[in-house]
Amino acid sequence: MAVPQGTRAPVIFVLEPFGGSIRRNNPNLPFIFWDDAAVTRGDGVFETLLIRDGKAANLRRHAERFRSSARLLDMPEPDAEYWARATAEAAEAWVTERGEGVDAKCVWTYTRGRASTGFPSAWLVLSDIPQKTLDQRANGVKVMTTPRGFSVDTTLPGVDEVTRGGTGPGEERRVAPWLTVGAKTLNYAANMAALRWAHAHGTDDVIYVDPRDVHPDKGPRVLEGATSTVVLAKSKKRLRTPVPGGEVLPGTTQAALFEHAEAAGWRCKARDIYLRDLKTAESVWLVSSVRVAARVLSLDGKTLEVGGDPEEVRALIEGALGS
Amino acid sequence: MAVPQGTRAPVIFVLEPFGGSIRRNNPNLPFIFWDDAAVTRGDGVFETLLIRDGKAANLRRHAERFRSSARLLDMPEPDAEYWARATAEAAEAWVTERGEGVDAKCVWTYTRGRASTGFPSAWLVLSDIPQKTLDQRANGVKVMTTPRGFSVDTTLPGVDEVTRGGTGPGEERRVAPWLTVGAKTLNYAANMAALRWAHAHGTDDVIYVDPRDVHPDKGPRVLEGATSTVVLAKSKKRLRTPVPGGEVLPGTTQAALFEHAEAAGWRCKARDIYLRDLKTAESVWLVSSVRVAARVLSLDGKTLEVGGDPEEVRALIEGALGS
Repeated sequence: MAVPQGTRAPVIFVLEPFGGSIRRNNPNLPFIFWDDAAVTRGDGVFETLLIRDGKAANLRRHAERFRSSARLLDMPEPDAEYWARATAEAAEAWVTERGEGVDAKCVWTYTRGRASTGFPSAWLVLSDIPQKTLDQRANGVKVMTTPRGFSVDTTLPGVDEVTRGGTGPGEERRVAPWLTVGAKTLNYAANMAALRWAHAHGTDDVIYVDPRDVHPDKGPRVLEGATSTVVLAKSKKRLRTPVPGGEVLPGTTQAALFEHAEAAGWRCKARDIYLRDLKTAESVWLVSSVRVAARVLSLDGKTLEVGGDPEEVRALIEGALGS
Repeated sequence: MAVPQGTRAPVIFVLEPFGGSIRRNNPNLPFIFWDDAAVTRGDGVFETLLIRDGKAANLRRHAERFRSSARLLDMPEPDAEYWARATAEAAEAWVTERGEGVDAKCVWTYTRGRASTGFPSAWLVLSDIPQKTLDQRANGVKVMTTPRGFSVDTTLPGVDEVTRGGTGPGEERRVAPWLTVGAKTLNYAANMAALRWAHAHGTDDVIYVDPRDVHPDKGPRVLEGATSTVVLAKSKKRLRTPVPGGEVLPGTTQAALFEHAEAAGWRCKARDIYLRDLKTAESVWLVSSVRVAARVLSLDGKTLEVGGDPEEVRALIEGALGS
């Protein structure tokens, strides 16, 4: 059984599919129809943002990935300006009702819409950050590694570029069946199953590894967390993350972190990372927009040694969210 | 833009998650909440059934796969008896309102439910079969083949059995992250993308092939349609279908067909099938519950030769739905 996520009501705004008015929705009233593609097919895209001090953190990158995801699904491109305005209005309502200083989780949802109308559906929800998320942010997570159970065929033409976010507005749209890969779609049931599996095994999260790409000394290649990007801190102010593309969704928080850390004198690179690299890093982090950064305490039951100053890394990640 | 599917209103019944009363829902009123796992994660299962002559066709097999899908997602097992009763009540309402002899498409949906309550959501919808579906049933479909873009890792322990439906009620539940594979979940965005891609290329449907399993003479291995099972009719009253498991969902209509056809003296087998096998068959069919059987007219732009008596095969499939 899921636990109620916070005791206060969320702030919900329903958007027009192509811009226009924004309407607040009473959270006790349902507003989604049986024939919405989100419900019948998981056919839509989403972004999860952190609202801090009444503002959406890392807004530009989320808006970019949101637009890119929509393009990959061959949906009309969402108007970033309009979504930003709606988010600001919701954040204002949040601050008014909950006071300053209460972080919120903001989810943007944009679906192919009702089969009976053909118009996309769009809404956003601000809600309390679950206590468990706050605990993991503060105290870290125990992690188990697991194969994902499926793999993206990156040998197919175009897949590699597309999954690295390579569809700028000016580029030709690549209409092909595999193009939901690389989009942040509502098809997240497998990730949720992986998290349930982790919890059933006394851990908090999973890191996916690729059992078909095993380094003779360093073990399987590391992909990503169930809902986060893996980041390693190494000696001499170095940060590493697995190369995005294929089964590794480009991370918005990781991107913000790398930009911020580079400016602070760190050297940041996307590299192929293998399991043993996690064990020899100074610290290992799962970064994502709302949990921000959870340090990996243990991997498959074995405590990870900590080197360097993890709090310096955490401060970098927190600092990146203002940028 | 999607086209309205029929001009008449659907019949919607909302079910209790653990059995109980059944309540009709006005189709003009939304009833799904923003925090339903179906909406936020595509986290739920479904079945699509044909209602013919006021009855659900192939009910037992659909109920079995529905239960199996729920088990795979670690959801409380739905009560088949209760769903059958709700379906019968909805079918009765359909016949009363639409008259005898109008087929309906019935979709069962069962989701992990609202995050804020922890109770599963459950409903069923009877609606008109889209005219396009009826046309394809009558006239056949042009098909293009395509790789799926991802592949299920069947070398992982348990995956092969699970994806062949190997989780009887008495068996230990295999709680593992890859177990949504083999379940008929709401994560169907990729299949919808494949169909859009087929339409954009002047065809009606796709057949997935495995580019990593290519026979030297016969080409890539055939998997399944986007929303259907591939069946071949061969000389000497033989029917063949790709071996289910991995990326091939076991088909309920195909199973009913094979049982019915065996009783009528045909020899039916699941085998590894390669692309050339489709070209040398007497006829090739995409079978599914509502479209029932659409003959494949052409493959990647090349007309398929027809042998034997396709109408005999069609009659077998239609006949199987009474069983």
